[in-house]
Amino acid sequence: MVNLRIPGPIPVNDDILESMGTPMINHRGPEFKEILYRTTERLKTVFSTKNDVYIITGSGTSAMEAAVVNTLSPGDKAINATVGVFGNRFGVISERYGIDLVSLEFPFGSDVDLDVLRNCLNANPDVKAVMVTHNETSTGVTNNLQGISTVVKKEYDKLILVDGISSVCSLPLETDLWDLDVVATASQKGWMLPPGLAFISFSEKAWEAHSRSTMPRFYLDMAEYKRYYEIGQPPFTPSVSCMFALDLALDQIVTEGMGSVFKRHASIGQYTRDCIAELNLNIFPNSKEIASNTCTAVEVPEGVDGSKLVSKMRDEHKVVLAGGQASLSGKIFRIGHMGQTTESDIKGAMDALKIVLPEIGFRN
Amino acid sequence: MVNLRIPGPIPVNDDILESMGTPMINHRGPEFKEILYRTTERLKTVFSTKNDVYIITGSGTSAMEAAVVNTLSPGDKAINATVGVFGNRFGVISERYGIDLVSLEFPFGSDVDLDVLRNCLNANPDVKAVMVTHNETSTGVTNNLQGISTVVKKEYDKLILVDGISSVCSLPLETDLWDLDVVATASQKGWMLPPGLAFISFSEKAWEAHSRSTMPRFYLDMAEYKRYYEIGQPPFTPSVSCMFALDLALDQIVTEGMGSVFKRHASIGQYTRDCIAELNLNIFPNSKEIASNTCTAVEVPEGVDGSKLVSKMRDEHKVVLAGGQASLSGKIFRIGHMGQTTESDIKGAMDALKIVLPEIGFRN
Repeated sequence: MVNLRIPGPIPVNDDILESMGTPMINHRGPEFKEILYRTTERLKTVFSTKNDVYIITGSGTSAMEAAVVNTLSPGDKAINATVGVFGNRFGVISERYGIDLVSLEFPFGSDVDLDVLRNCLNANPDVKAVMVTHNETSTGVTNNLQGISTVVKKEYDKLILVDGISSVCSLPLETDLWDLDVVATASQKGWMLPPGLAFISFSEKAWEAHSRSTMPRFYLDMAEYKRYYEIGQPPFTPSVSCMFALDLALDQIVTEGMGSVFKRHASIGQYTRDCIAELNLNIFPNSKEIASNTCTAVEVPEGVDGSKLVSKMRDEHKVVLAGGQASLSGKIFRIGHMGQTTESDIKGAMDALKIVLPEIGFRN
Repeated sequence: MVNLRIPGPIPVNDDILESMGTPMINHRGPEFKEILYRTTERLKTVFSTKNDVYIITGSGTSAMEAAVVNTLSPGDKAINATVGVFGNRFGVISERYGIDLVSLEFPFGSDVDLDVLRNCLNANPDVKAVMVTHNETSTGVTNNLQGISTVVKKEYDKLILVDGISSVCSLPLETDLWDLDVVATASQKGWMLPPGLAFISFSEKAWEAHSRSTMPRFYLDMAEYKRYYEIGQPPFTPSVSCMFALDLALDQIVTEGMGSVFKRHASIGQYTRDCIAELNLNIFPNSKEIASNTCTAVEVPEGVDGSKLVSKMRDEHKVVLAGGQASLSGKIFRIGHMGQTTESDIKGAMDALKIVLPEIGFRN
């Protein structure tokens, strides 16, 4: 049995996998309408919002792109507060669509500094929006989204567009309490689902921005989703199998309660960091306080080949870790622990690390 | 057991449904790389092409949008030759992206007239591309794509962008022989798969157009797909479960052989039309020669309520038909017969029609 320990896709429970095999139904019929309305209401519970929430057949990136193209116009200025590879992606998407981008880059391993963000907002009073990643899996860092949103919304009254791909349904995220305009996320994370669906919440302010936005869009136009939602249909043929799985997973999640879901992630995050410390390895984030509870990034120790580490773990011990991305390639490895990851899953990975590390030059 | 007779999603065989429940794997690992390369090569067999073929997690519409945004630029002139609702959608997408659209509309029920198309091309020598739907499920009409492409490519040397959503893998479509630049299709049709994936072929001429295209795009940027394909990865997290299903379905399709797949569809199409004639009903297309072998559109007879017909068939006989769309609402109903539809599936639907029609005012 493979121990899949990447930050998504995550291992999916058998009952959810089985639900993927439910026979097809008409996506424009009454049965699908019930599923669409039921799942959407439950998604709102998970997002902790009364805002609109829509389901896109696509990856998390499609939902990030939707956040940009539904609220901004070419030439609009926006700040992208980035702490890693996925934060940078928000910037790339924006530039593709002609946004006048202010790239506010924090060093990999650190989180968004609120005073630096304030300075940037002061220097750019004409920005329309701030984009930010809640949980950056490329560096294993969780931003203080509540603090960021307080600055962006309460102090400066700008739109906030959140990449919540690896946080919603894993880490506390209060869409309404924190006044988040757009939150984008995807199914293959804490939802305990296969990839294939993305979810996006849209505030009234986001709709106001949409009404002024001149960005070209069709497949990702939230107005199409809204219009069809009113008649109980998706605008485009959805991943019906993933919708069956979503329906079942949300039933389980809402029954468990979000408090328990968050506690589960906090606990396994702490356990993983404790194990890493026991191995005399260092986590990559600058401090424990900002270390992610969905994905732990670990420094590849001096003298060890990071890519060999990942391949030996996979080929010899069936433990699938993620390597570092972009400039972090070879410098870190990452352990995903979203969804129902157990201490035994993590212990299995650690036991394999104990064997592999000395084989490739680690001196404890 | 429900008899799902809409033009997609279509009923999916048990072995394919079961494959959707395969445990998750790393979409950036060696196992997925094998699946990606194997499925892509087999997709090329089905498309009958040596061109690039890419897999998008999204609906058929996302692939239509990809066809437009990867080859054209805002302000470019293009002809949209449309014979129905999905043809019109190609036009809507293009206009959203600032295309200078020449909408060449043929009456619902007819196909594209080649001389009218020639006249339109003569009147608009500056067009960059012609968009066309191969098989229009909204009216049950199949266009003479080979003839259209001969005009567009050989006589006028323009790009041709094809919506092959309900034709590829059901009806003969020769991407290379017919010189088709972009062909877009989706999984929930003749592929016998659940929805969730779209496939798109891209010719050398399409790549040349891409290099000049200034259209904004990211999730649907074929250059991202090409770049990642070279390292055996998808650019964005794909619907892994649908990929497992695609892998199995393509194995079966290629083993069966495209000749047999096309023959199967031709045969069930003819059988369905024969049954409709026996019931003294009329098909909607202007002539039998252009009637689709994947979806039969039938005129709702005088005095019969089309929406009551569809709901009684569904609620009382578990036969799920599709109604008419847009201006055809209430005027036609549609019977899907893609994939492995059997004569017994169609006969079941006909037996129910024989009961329902007289109950709602049909005088034979």
